[in-house]
Amino acid sequence: MCEANAYLIENDGKSGKPGETLLMEAVDKVEPDEEGILLVSIFGEQKFIKGHIHSLSLVDHKIYIKLKP
Amino acid sequence: MCEANAYLIENDGKSGKPGETLLMEAVDKVEPDEEGILLVSIFGEQKFIKGHIHSLSLVDHKIYIKLKP
Repeated sequence: MCEANAYLIENDGKSGKPGETLLMEAVDKVEPDEEGILLVSIFGEQKFIKGHIHSLSLVDHKIYIKLKP
Repeated sequence: MCEANAYLIENDGKSGKPGETLLMEAVDKVEPDEEGILLVSIFGEQKFIKGHIHSLSLVDHKIYIKLKP
């Protein structure tokens, strides 16, 4: 299975304090819209995050999300 | 390996002619910015697409991209 974990990036690292917080494990579907991002896990769990996709690193199973300013 | 294939969605299906075109296979990194999306494959190949992420279906290994209007 190739689900990924979604992390909130709290700081882009430019000021020297990067940080990531796990939002959801085993994410299957990701559906961005104008308000934010709907995450759906392989178990059917859903979370809506008011943010945007910062980047994906699929081989590492990681989805990075930043909150909207 | 959990890379995915990136597809261009040419029509959202609402008008009855959905279609998807393969943009890149074996995508590892996806980095959206204001202008578009940088795709990087597991082989290091790079493509920049003037679009946004429509959705991800990771268990199916699919990244759906729509062109900017």
